[in-house]
Amino acid sequence: MAEDFSDLRAIFLNCSIKYDAASSHTRRLMARSAGIMDSQGVTVDFVHLLDHDIAFGMVKDAKADSGRAADDWPGIQERIMAADILVLGTPIWLGVKSSVATLCIERMYAYSGDRNEKGQYLYYGKTAGCVVTGNEDGIKHCSMDILYAMSHIGYTVPPQADCGWIGEAGPGSSYSDVVEGSSVPVGYDNDFTHKNCTIMSWNLMHTARRLKDAGGLPTTGNLPEKWREVTNALDQDPERTSF
Amino acid sequence: MAEDFSDLRAIFLNCSIKYDAASSHTRRLMARSAGIMDSQGVTVDFVHLLDHDIAFGMVKDAKADSGRAADDWPGIQERIMAADILVLGTPIWLGVKSSVATLCIERMYAYSGDRNEKGQYLYYGKTAGCVVTGNEDGIKHCSMDILYAMSHIGYTVPPQADCGWIGEAGPGSSYSDVVEGSSVPVGYDNDFTHKNCTIMSWNLMHTARRLKDAGGLPTTGNLPEKWREVTNALDQDPERTSF
Amino acid sequence: MAEDFSDLRAIFLNCSIKYDAASSHTRRLMARSAGIMDSQGVTVDFVHLLDHDIAFGMVKDAKADSGRAADDWPGIQERIMAADILVLGTPIWLGVKSSVATLCIERMYAYSGDRNEKGQYLYYGKTAGCVVTGNEDGIKHCSMDILYAMSHIGYTVPPQADCGWIGEAGPGSSYSDVVEGSSVPVGYDNDFTHKNCTIMSWNLMHTARRLKDAGGLPTTGNLPEKWREVTNALDQDPERTSF
Amino acid sequence: MAEDFSDLRAIFLNCSIKYDAASSHTRRLMARSAGIMDSQGVTVDFVHLLDHDIAFGMVKDAKADSGRAADDWPGIQERIMAADILVLGTPIWLGVKSSVATLCIERMYAYSGDRNEKGQYLYYGKTAGCVVTGNEDGIKHCSMDILYAMSHIGYTVPPQADCGWIGEAGPGSSYSDVVEGSSVPVGYDNDFTHKNCTIMSWNLMHTARRLKDAGGLPTTGNLPEKWREVTNALDQDPERTSF
Repeated sequence: MAEDFSDLRAIFLNCSIKYDAASSHTRRLMARSAGIMDSQGVTVDFVHLLDHDIAFGMVKDAKADSGRAADDWPGIQERIMAADILVLGTPIWLGVKSSVATLCIERMYAYSGDRNEKGQYLYYGKTAGCVVTGNEDGIKHCSMDILYAMSHIGYTVPPQADCGWIGEAGPGSSYSDVVEGSSVPVGYDNDFTHKNCTIMSWNLMHTARRLKDAGGLPTTGNLPEKWREVTNALDQDPERTSF
Repeated sequence: MAEDFSDLRAIFLNCSIKYDAASSHTRRLMARSAGIMDSQGVTVDFVHLLDHDIAFGMVKDAKADSGRAADDWPGIQERIMAADILVLGTPIWLGVKSSVATLCIERMYAYSGDRNEKGQYLYYGKTAGCVVTGNEDGIKHCSMDILYAMSHIGYTVPPQADCGWIGEAGPGSSYSDVVEGSSVPVGYDNDFTHKNCTIMSWNLMHTARRLKDAGGLPTTGNLPEKWREVTNALDQDPERTSF
Repeated sequence: MAEDFSDLRAIFLNCSIKYDAASSHTRRLMARSAGIMDSQGVTVDFVHLLDHDIAFGMVKDAKADSGRAADDWPGIQERIMAADILVLGTPIWLGVKSSVATLCIERMYAYSGDRNEKGQYLYYGKTAGCVVTGNEDGIKHCSMDILYAMSHIGYTVPPQADCGWIGEAGPGSSYSDVVEGSSVPVGYDNDFTHKNCTIMSWNLMHTARRLKDAGGLPTTGNLPEKWREVTNALDQDPERTSF
Repeated sequence: MAEDFSDLRAIFLNCSIKYDAASSHTRRLMARSAGIMDSQGVTVDFVHLLDHDIAFGMVKDAKADSGRAADDWPGIQERIMAADILVLGTPIWLGVKSSVATLCIERMYAYSGDRNEKGQYLYYGKTAGCVVTGNEDGIKHCSMDILYAMSHIGYTVPPQADCGWIGEAGPGSSYSDVVEGSSVPVGYDNDFTHKNCTIMSWNLMHTARRLKDAGGLPTTGNLPEKWREVTNALDQDPERTSF
């Protein structure tokens, strides 16, 4: 029997460095993942971060905390917190994720002192993946950086939670470019990219479904303020060699 | 009510570059995690990889595939496949994971063409974490590298699935070293290290418990040979901008 | 006989994510390197990037290219081009360099289609290093990321071109913090940090001296538009096994 | 006037994970770089590391230090020390450099306590680059890892000291594969790859030429045991803001 995903929410954060959302290549591959989730009833929220004025800093609200005139982050953070699934999209430049992706993660990290209603780190009970495109290489490098950050702040990372497209080594066309002599836009005939995008999207839904049904993760052992009250690492014998 | 973890199996793979298992610092922190799991009834298998003769190569069995005289990997692979939880431990050298850790991951990756009994990638339904120690820095860098590899081949990565110890910038003592003037071995009084080790260990057990109870991940959308048979990325409109 | 460095210029780019320059910890370690260079007659230009309004995008001038109301980058780029030595400073967050550092490198990269007066990539003939501080780990990870980017766009990287400070694993004080019970600010008594800062600073001066004296690098083989006119990779036999 | 490189020596270390040297794809691109150097009179030494029995460990000689029956590293180390130029080649697996490359760097690092005849770190006065190939992505990620390690132990890294080949995202052919329907082996018609290989090779020769002519780097400020005897970081005022 098919699972019902219709009570799930997903947020797609496009960390393109282009102010003009329409010209983002990464957006096109993200839209495919969003389309899969939408088709299964997931409520999709799609944000082009550079449509917003986001301040720098390890702060929750730069207006309140750093005296900035503007900071749209608190509103974005609310949308992130409302979602069960997060998909972060980034272009690749010099083999690494974008400045906007780095900024996005820094701002999310600034809330890491907060706790969820169970006393766990704030992002527990949610799941995350990423979409990476470029005409240079670095899908895996960007993915390890992004997925680690998500895991570290509390997201669960399902199997194969990344997808991407790059061309052969060297400068060249980007995903979705229309080039002469080809009947389809660049990358649109790449099975690997779209297989991975499909798997990622479904695994995020499966994992979110289960986390939501179970009310997140059990609290035993992962309440940062109470870790000494359970069987813990300090209790154990570090010299032990047989188990 | 406490969860019952007594039917779970965990494998700890120590990727120390020391042939002498007893002298590994990483082993001590791994033992703490293993101790927590053992205390909860998990069956723990602990392997010092350099106790074995492991061949190089993107092959399943270097005796059969590359004509090597010896290759202990197939036996280790069986133990990995028997476990619900994998914890990979590595020292840090020059900011990166060890050669033995790299070798271990390459050999696991060589099986990535195999499928589990449901037709998914081989390692689906299992969960992974890592333990990193060094006197140089790089816990997060090693962790992102290792956890990404595990995720990419099919493992589920729970929140905060890494822990580690390093000292202040510069050469110096390693975790568990006994130094004059200190009442405890180096690092044994570091709350951050042992809190993270505790959280990682419990989150691995919680995640393994759920994956096992559910019979792994549902197969919709993640069977690599059948991704076109479900709602998939190619079906979607990459130009779509509202959801 | 001592070398004369008095005709050299160095630019220090602080990629702190704090708008308030005075509160940057990274600045303190950068100031030590700048102080060494200044003592040897090098003209030092020190920039706190967040004192400026820098636009996102793979563009040279976001006012002209993206229609932004403001973009201070072109002025910063001029200062970068005037310098023989570049030192990029960054804090560590989640094990990686800052969003501002990523932005800085993206903007420098946007000029990579330009050529210097000899027809080489724009940044040829200059040398670069980096300063990294944090209370989390990641000096080496940030350094490999930054120094690679610099090398890739044309800078020469001398031996040991990075330095940094972090504390023992876990949250805690940052470089220069004043804490009760300690006679010196945090990190100020760390020999490793200051030895590396010293070596980096001198090696940057030595390397800049030599590059300047020689008029940059010879052009044979590294003119991107003329690589086929010299003995090149395509001419060679890839099957050759003895040399 | 053309430079004379005929007194230079280069060592090419192929860190393929294949025991059979002939089947390495990375070797083909390395051979092109070696060919360029050979054509200019550089003495080329080419090593397929898996032709040798190399022990693990942060040791100089595993026979003497760890009681291993065999360890070919000391002989390889001598060849490394005899060379002015080092080119390390690696395949990409899961986005990172190979286990053999990691092992190679660990063994080189084990000598980092040694000093050259001037009292500097051992590898001062030498220059290094890298060659990376794969059918997965990761050229830049592998390069940043390798070049950083080389810089950190004393090598000078010239501009654009890396080159590589990968195909479009997804599994597929490797560099030099012969595939039906193509008149040239895979990658042999990639201008980007061969332009970069050309630039890297020449920049390594130029940089080695200059380092050799100058007798390495000057010693002021970079003698690890004497850094306090020169103008150093500790002497400087970390609070200074104008220069």
